[in-house]
Amino acid sequence: MTSSEARKIAPDDRSAGVVETQFFTFASPETGMNLESGKKLGPVTLAYETYGTLNPERTNAILVCHALSGDAHGAGIHRGQDNPGWWDDMIGPGKAFDTDRYFVISSNVIGGCKGSTGPSSPHPKTERPYALDFPVITIADMVEAQRRLVDHLGIDRLLAVAGGSMGGMQVLQWVASFPERVRSAIPIATTLKHSPQQIAFNEVVRQSIMADPEWRQGNYYAYGQPAKGLAVARMIGHITFMSDRSMEEKFSRKRKNGGFNKFDPDFEVEGYLRYRGDAFVKRFDANSYLYITKAMDYFDLSDGRLFREGRLPDTRFLVISFKSDWLYPSYQSQELVRELKRGRVDATYCDIRSTYGHDAFLVEIEEQTHLIRYFLKRTFDGNGTLCL
Amino acid sequence: MTSSEARKIAPDDRSAGVVETQFFTFASPETGMNLESGKKLGPVTLAYETYGTLNPERTNAILVCHALSGDAHGAGIHRGQDNPGWWDDMIGPGKAFDTDRYFVISSNVIGGCKGSTGPSSPHPKTERPYALDFPVITIADMVEAQRRLVDHLGIDRLLAVAGGSMGGMQVLQWVASFPERVRSAIPIATTLKHSPQQIAFNEVVRQSIMADPEWRQGNYYAYGQPAKGLAVARMIGHITFMSDRSMEEKFSRKRKNGGFNKFDPDFEVEGYLRYRGDAFVKRFDANSYLYITKAMDYFDLSDGRLFREGRLPDTRFLVISFKSDWLYPSYQSQELVRELKRGRVDATYCDIRSTYGHDAFLVEIEEQTHLIRYFLKRTFDGNGTLCL
Repeated sequence: MTSSEARKIAPDDRSAGVVETQFFTFASPETGMNLESGKKLGPVTLAYETYGTLNPERTNAILVCHALSGDAHGAGIHRGQDNPGWWDDMIGPGKAFDTDRYFVISSNVIGGCKGSTGPSSPHPKTERPYALDFPVITIADMVEAQRRLVDHLGIDRLLAVAGGSMGGMQVLQWVASFPERVRSAIPIATTLKHSPQQIAFNEVVRQSIMADPEWRQGNYYAYGQPAKGLAVARMIGHITFMSDRSMEEKFSRKRKNGGFNKFDPDFEVEGYLRYRGDAFVKRFDANSYLYITKAMDYFDLSDGRLFREGRLPDTRFLVISFKSDWLYPSYQSQELVRELKRGRVDATYCDIRSTYGHDAFLVEIEEQTHLIRYFLKRTFDGNGTLCL
Repeated sequence: MTSSEARKIAPDDRSAGVVETQFFTFASPETGMNLESGKKLGPVTLAYETYGTLNPERTNAILVCHALSGDAHGAGIHRGQDNPGWWDDMIGPGKAFDTDRYFVISSNVIGGCKGSTGPSSPHPKTERPYALDFPVITIADMVEAQRRLVDHLGIDRLLAVAGGSMGGMQVLQWVASFPERVRSAIPIATTLKHSPQQIAFNEVVRQSIMADPEWRQGNYYAYGQPAKGLAVARMIGHITFMSDRSMEEKFSRKRKNGGFNKFDPDFEVEGYLRYRGDAFVKRFDANSYLYITKAMDYFDLSDGRLFREGRLPDTRFLVISFKSDWLYPSYQSQELVRELKRGRVDATYCDIRSTYGHDAFLVEIEEQTHLIRYFLKRTFDGNGTLCL
């Protein structure tokens, strides 16, 4: 199935419609939010969107968590614009996360640059961007902020928390931090802990940004982004998001020019990477990339306590991985599933055949829709009632 | 088998001994050497070393070709220094390339910076470094220069041409360019053509160097290397040389400090990459890295003519790949072997079980030694005589 074929099952009449990003602010500069590092952060703003309607029992809420460079705009379109949300194929009427049945919350993460508090936000004391005065944040901190948002929305227990890649880490962290508040978990293309290879790729990304003199030790906001370093960083990312095979299918050795050029883009794959790198500079803050990659590197829930028997008596899991994903390889999802089984947690696992590599969680819509729709239906309906 | 165990089979008394790098210069500035691009290059110097003794019949010569950042120093040590050659475990008395039996030539490549003509060499007209005035070179150009060296040494036909990674590309190019001069070929951990993923990694490497303002459009020689960009470039390389598993075995999630640091090296894998990146800046010219990676990207012998039936009536192949090598995956060697079989070329193939990734051709000594010793013995001895 190609990406364009996948998209055919999501025509416009199944869109979540015109949506608006909302903002929730908590924690004053004085009290602050306690971070895992021991530091405090306040005020904290979280950007989020919602789709569908919360039922009177408040039992149909699903939290959707985004990946590294995602944002709160998960589905639908913004008024006057035509950019659908990052998981628009999955969220909407009749889709995997069916907004006719469920109330879907798409939350941004702290540390980012898409409306939530991050290194580019004003420091409450100076009113200038935090830059590197922003504290280290972890996946647990991101989830703690989301917990406050879920409280604010008046939801005791989420029907599901779902997400791919770093979104999947947030899913697992929700279960770790607030097991009683998660009825079901859908971690996709993710891991229980960042491996040294995953850390290594993130470290090279960070080094590339920090090697750019325009980065100015993080204080570039008055001058503009460290564009070259950030573009190279993103190019590295894009290689890891695709598979060897999907690159072969998309680009093979096709060239623009032929002949022997020096170092201008010549092979199509080179032009693609440069385009993606440059586009990223316009949409994502370099310091946010540093902080969020570091949060991923610190992520490690592999100590065995998370899924020990009896801790998750009625949390159900749907674990999904993709065979060609070499950035978050299937074996990592399988290690997660083994831990779940060892703790006698109710878990379903599917390793989807796909050639798209890590990107698959964004483009393999049909197979994921089938799995998630059924899983959610069974979780929500239970034996006629929601099992709480 | 760990790397240190592998090294145990190569004690000092089996060293190629004290060796000296030699230099062969050909092609005047007027005549020049014809390059594949149509340009000319001259004069051309090639650095090389030899080990063992050429027999009176001149039938025991083996050419060993190095990878991307290698040099002519393949075995033994230089007087007053203790750095063994890059394939010292494989070349020496009683080793895979047994210098008691064979005359081993280790040749540097043009485009490099280790004594052979490259972008850091003086332009004959200006006496200043060529920088980006250096012409584009290809693997075929590297091999054409080596052919002249082999002529100079008075050798009509090489008993074998061997090498890993880009060295393996040179092996295949030798067979393509001069089939009658190659009795046997040992391409290791290599490919018939660079894939888009391989091009993509090289392109990011180049972009990282060129993003550094200290690169100065290639004219940095009076100022020093573009150190930060080159270090990041090499860090990317080192991730691709190892496997996910070898990184896990070597580093896991071990940390220096604990706690939550910002962006100083913290995980051991981060420190390793930074060390390797910085060390590389001291030993390799940034422009050479640009030119040589581009030569690899242009490499494509997949058009099927190379191994068409009858073209290689008496050239034998030993093809080696490593199961955990994801930079030059086994399937690429298997495609090569399929082409060879289709052309009815005599070929032996082994996919060695190893966790070292692409680095395996440098560290999996025992298994390679076993395969190569036997293959060379059978090729050299034939049925009592060398089959020419």
